[in-house]
Amino acid sequence: MAKQKKPQRPKAQTPKGFRDYFGAEVAQRTDMLRTIAGVYHRYGFEALESAAVETVEALGKFLPDVDRPNEGVFAWQEEDENDNGDWLALRYDLTAPLARVFAQHRNDLPTPYRRFAMGPVWRNEKPGPGRFRQFYQCDADTVGSGNVAADAEICAMLADTLEAVGIDRGDYVVRINNRKVLNGVLEAVLAANTPNPNEPPVAYDDLGEWQANILRTIDKFDKVGEAGVRELLGKGRLDASGAYIDGVGLSDVEAEPVIAFLTSKGDDTTSTLANLEKAVGSSEIGLKGVAELQQMADLLAAGGYGPDRIVIDPSVVRGLGYYTGPVFEAELTFEIKDEKGRPRSFGSVAGGGRYDDLVKRFTGQEVPATGVSIGVDRLLAALHMKGRLSTDTTGPVVVTVMDRDRMADYQGIVSELRNAGIRAEVYLGNPKSFGNQLKYADQRNSPIAIIQGGDELAAGTLQVKDLILGAKLAETASQEEWSERPQQFEIPRADLVNRIKALLDEQSQ
Amino acid sequence: MAKQKKPQRPKAQTPKGFRDYFGAEVAQRTDMLRTIAGVYHRYGFEALESAAVETVEALGKFLPDVDRPNEGVFAWQEEDENDNGDWLALRYDLTAPLARVFAQHRNDLPTPYRRFAMGPVWRNEKPGPGRFRQFYQCDADTVGSGNVAADAEICAMLADTLEAVGIDRGDYVVRINNRKVLNGVLEAVLAANTPNPNEPPVAYDDLGEWQANILRTIDKFDKVGEAGVRELLGKGRLDASGAYIDGVGLSDVEAEPVIAFLTSKGDDTTSTLANLEKAVGSSEIGLKGVAELQQMADLLAAGGYGPDRIVIDPSVVRGLGYYTGPVFEAELTFEIKDEKGRPRSFGSVAGGGRYDDLVKRFTGQEVPATGVSIGVDRLLAALHMKGRLSTDTTGPVVVTVMDRDRMADYQGIVSELRNAGIRAEVYLGNPKSFGNQLKYADQRNSPIAIIQGGDELAAGTLQVKDLILGAKLAETASQEEWSERPQQFEIPRADLVNRIKALLDEQSQ
Repeated sequence: MAKQKKPQRPKAQTPKGFRDYFGAEVAQRTDMLRTIAGVYHRYGFEALESAAVETVEALGKFLPDVDRPNEGVFAWQEEDENDNGDWLALRYDLTAPLARVFAQHRNDLPTPYRRFAMGPVWRNEKPGPGRFRQFYQCDADTVGSGNVAADAEICAMLADTLEAVGIDRGDYVVRINNRKVLNGVLEAVLAANTPNPNEPPVAYDDLGEWQANILRTIDKFDKVGEAGVRELLGKGRLDASGAYIDGVGLSDVEAEPVIAFLTSKGDDTTSTLANLEKAVGSSEIGLKGVAELQQMADLLAAGGYGPDRIVIDPSVVRGLGYYTGPVFEAELTFEIKDEKGRPRSFGSVAGGGRYDDLVKRFTGQEVPATGVSIGVDRLLAALHMKGRLSTDTTGPVVVTVMDRDRMADYQGIVSELRNAGIRAEVYLGNPKSFGNQLKYADQRNSPIAIIQGGDELAAGTLQVKDLILGAKLAETASQEEWSERPQQFEIPRADLVNRIKALLDEQSQ
Repeated sequence: MAKQKKPQRPKAQTPKGFRDYFGAEVAQRTDMLRTIAGVYHRYGFEALESAAVETVEALGKFLPDVDRPNEGVFAWQEEDENDNGDWLALRYDLTAPLARVFAQHRNDLPTPYRRFAMGPVWRNEKPGPGRFRQFYQCDADTVGSGNVAADAEICAMLADTLEAVGIDRGDYVVRINNRKVLNGVLEAVLAANTPNPNEPPVAYDDLGEWQANILRTIDKFDKVGEAGVRELLGKGRLDASGAYIDGVGLSDVEAEPVIAFLTSKGDDTTSTLANLEKAVGSSEIGLKGVAELQQMADLLAAGGYGPDRIVIDPSVVRGLGYYTGPVFEAELTFEIKDEKGRPRSFGSVAGGGRYDDLVKRFTGQEVPATGVSIGVDRLLAALHMKGRLSTDTTGPVVVTVMDRDRMADYQGIVSELRNAGIRAEVYLGNPKSFGNQLKYADQRNSPIAIIQGGDELAAGTLQVKDLILGAKLAETASQEEWSERPQQFEIPRADLVNRIKALLDEQSQ
């Protein structure tokens, strides 16, 4: 027979940007999802779970007629005789599927439709340290309500949720802004440019390319400050590296609404809103945005959500293009160390806002909607850093195997413990080496090992080894303590459940 | 300006074979997963969550050098300058990822590694009625133990799990078989064919094409019975439609081990095992399989798992090629009606077995492993049919909006209720029509509506509408009852929480 070519072995590797979660990590996330679902449910939202897979057409943003349209998403084409199958993709968020679900089932759903959803989403992006291509989101949305009370409620719920999962009041803030205010500022810029001030300002939809330039400049406010923004809005600016950055080309008068907007944050809501009102001038959409912020602030104040939890903050400019009204994000304000050991605040863990056009893509009818998305994995990371995750990693009670012909006896011990609600297992590896069995119990973080050899069997007893005490003593004990508190002792077989229960209680104190 | 072409609207449709799950359906699955995880955890298994996406190479079964290797899986190629990116795919089960995880992390994991995993898996198959391309599995496996005690434990856990989720004892049975017995039967067939009975039987690995034919025939036993199988193993058979089915071509003597195997089920475990022993003749692997079944039966009997829950059943021939020893499946035995209204038993909801070669693909070292997979969606469907799912579909208390300028007041009512743990919301749709508000409460299955107009505000009261009583009275009440038990009554605003709590308690009785 010809010598067969040795087959190449597959690599045991997660694909780039994906990872495995073990034990406590899984339990912690499950707990967090349950807690969040509890708050969302109490607020009146109903669960929805859609599939991970959508048509690229329904997800939007991507063109099905491109050969390989998976920019940003994981996509593939369905098999089909004519090579004409649908393009499918993994969902990249939970909002696009919601729009599809509402459009598809709208005749059977109540309006407003209030749903929450939780689960993984996928992004086909370059992975980096701490940046994964699959991560969990946890969303709640109200579809079919144009009332800003819906937005205010979501902000209040976001604050409640953060506290419910263990973020203390004072360690987070929910910041609110409104896209209409920003649009009003852009209109005010245009109005300042109008030769005849009696002409109505050009509508926001007609605004040109320079709008994008102004928005980009606004985003740089944190870095370059007021003077820098003035330069960038005007003729341009020499940056720190010596390079000259071209400006937007606005006159001082035209730039004024932008500057007023950027410096509008006052000592309290009243002064912030007054400043914003000035910034938008006579822009109708801008004034509507300010009025909506006022309404939200009033509703939240009435509900007891003061500026220690929720504030109006004009610096919130969320990335996604589809927001049309209120936008909000939750930031954790406590300090962590960055890669270089410098303190910085943890940053955003949730965001959302009003999007009135997403369902319209499908139905042609405008359906107002608002919602929030919590980045569960980031929130878990934050709680982990603060040491606020319950990390019960206690393993099972391990019954060792002294005589491999007596597996039925050992399983019997384990069954009794399990029936009493105690986590337990028989050692199922090769029982030849007793040392390996104890090493296994150690690796599993077992609190107790149970041993029954021939002598104990004859005497009707069990040896109980307190592995928690053993570990403590090994670290700290004097010889005296060591002998005073035995790590291993004998109990009657008949007392198994009571004695093990008592020892576990003692250990957990 | 040229008239723009009207853009085509995307279809609001789930891709073929996928579906959305709403409200109670999601909650029921979440509850079931939690219950199953509780049992698995008590048995000593640790949670593991791997990503939905694996390399096709790691999943196995599929060739990365084929242009589009997504037969049975959803697969796509990673972007790469040289069009040489990895092929990735959605996992089609939770076992293949486990083998990859164990091979990848084996130096950090305890051995045996006992893990449970739950989540969706994806199959690129033709969808059908009730057949979806995304569904949930819930697995537990012990990797690194060759002891049949590990298999027996999984069977016991499977029985416990089914009872924990609400399947009564007597409504299910866990059936056990062993692949080695089947292989022994094939060896016995070959031995019967050996001209010189003193020659050792050919090893199982050398068995030819006819082995597959025999297995296919064994699978037909349920349909064609003993006589039919005899014909199919021999010269062939005229089937009901009049077509002639070619036989495997065995002599009567050669067919005998197969017939003995198929008719081996006795009145109790002892007689079944004795029959199986006869069927495998002198086949070493066959006798090993029978001995393993005997050990499992002994361990299970010692643990109190009698044949009312777990039985040896030679008819279990599970499809997957990778099983190497014990195989088992859980069947629900109660009757349901099929599409044509005929009674049939519900069938299999879980299955598993021992697979000793899966990790070897990666590492070259044989790692014995055994595990079970529960089809959560099928189990939910079964419980649904039996009416055993808790279907708490109660909606939130709905506070109606009588005066749209008083949203803050209404939100205040809702906040008080929520803070007391009561599910509640303000109506956020257009409040113009009070009828629409009550219709919404009805669609949400709300137990109570709360109404506060100007009169109630002035009087410091609220109107409370008992929607559950209202629905009941509308169905059954005489005029007398109708007037005796008012569906709507007034309460002091200050008594809000106590009175609503009391009413909810009353309703749930």
